[in-house]
Amino acid sequence: MNERLILHEYAASGNCYKVRLTGALLGLPLERRQYDIMMGETRTPDFLANVNANGRIPVLQVGDRFIPESNAACFYLADGSALIPADRFERADMLRWMFFEQYNHEPNVATLRFWATFVGEANLEDAQRAQVPGKRAAGEAALRLMDEHLAAWRFFVADRPTLADIALYASHHVAEEGGFALRDYPSVQAWIDRITQIPAYVPMNS
Amino acid sequence: MNERLILHEYAASGNCYKVRLTGALLGLPLERRQYDIMMGETRTPDFLANVNANGRIPVLQVGDRFIPESNAACFYLADGSALIPADRFERADMLRWMFFEQYNHEPNVATLRFWATFVGEANLEDAQRAQVPGKRAAGEAALRLMDEHLAAWRFFVADRPTLADIALYASHHVAEEGGFALRDYPSVQAWIDRITQIPAYVPMNS
Repeated sequence: MNERLILHEYAASGNCYKVRLTGALLGLPLERRQYDIMMGETRTPDFLANVNANGRIPVLQVGDRFIPESNAACFYLADGSALIPADRFERADMLRWMFFEQYNHEPNVATLRFWATFVGEANLEDAQRAQVPGKRAAGEAALRLMDEHLAAWRFFVADRPTLADIALYASHHVAEEGGFALRDYPSVQAWIDRITQIPAYVPMNS
Repeated sequence: MNERLILHEYAASGNCYKVRLTGALLGLPLERRQYDIMMGETRTPDFLANVNANGRIPVLQVGDRFIPESNAACFYLADGSALIPADRFERADMLRWMFFEQYNHEPNVATLRFWATFVGEANLEDAQRAQVPGKRAAGEAALRLMDEHLAAWRFFVADRPTLADIALYASHHVAEEGGFALRDYPSVQAWIDRITQIPAYVPMNS
């Protein structure tokens, strides 16, 4: 990788952590630029015009080009490495779990964590409060599916670490902050322990 | 592709159509198995045990293996073809728009279409009704972002058709059924016309 890599991020976001973890496992140094999403720093005219018109982090900057969407940024960093399977079916299967993460896991588990830990229960709007039971049920369903899969496999795809594990781990290991009880999902808990033992692993607060 | 390809689907779903459109553009014949999602046919014990434990369609069956998640199924079919850019940055940029489609577009635009056209306004649960204004605003924001991008580009990535176009087109071209006015987004409208002119294009109802 010859071009300079800059991660535009909010460090406590699971979506941002997954890009840092991918970079760490691959030995790719990332410069880091912090934005306070609670202060609207990703919705300023400058950010929208020059970093991401979608007003969201993370964004991976590669030279003077930008890749929004955490899983796309991870794919860019890992392309050609062992974190993306060389086998056609396994590569698609990895993406299957990454789309699952963004569709079934993140909007439920990570959003409830964000609402509980960063916004605060008392500050939720009515429309948000109305969604809590549905998001709780959908989040539990996602965790059950992960737990059933991990009862038979050490990692999500091909029984070795891929971006599917990184994406789900980053969203997931802080699920208890969203009120989910990880002890109810023993296979997920064992997989979390396995992730932390991968060489070059870095925790979220590093 | 030597293995038999079977699409488990509900034909009126945009997520299923995108897999059919990818197959058509690549000249890959797919056998089709229909499930009536309104009758719960993707939540039966048999479906959950043998097709997709997540209870959702589409699922692409490759021989005796299964790929849930529409965009992962499209990636499997198109792997190695011109629908996935060979350039590393462009490949990640394509995935960026595919993750945007599943995170920002589909849960808003496609869900409002589903609620309006299949469930019916009068049959919505209170928790669903409370989400309509938020989904409307998020859907409009996704359409604006697409329109701004397409004002400068003929297709989403590398100025030629890729899976990013297929994913967004399939969810998107029926957005009016969800109450979105496509005339407000002229660059999107022109792009829709360009998609229908790609050789081997098939419409949703084919």
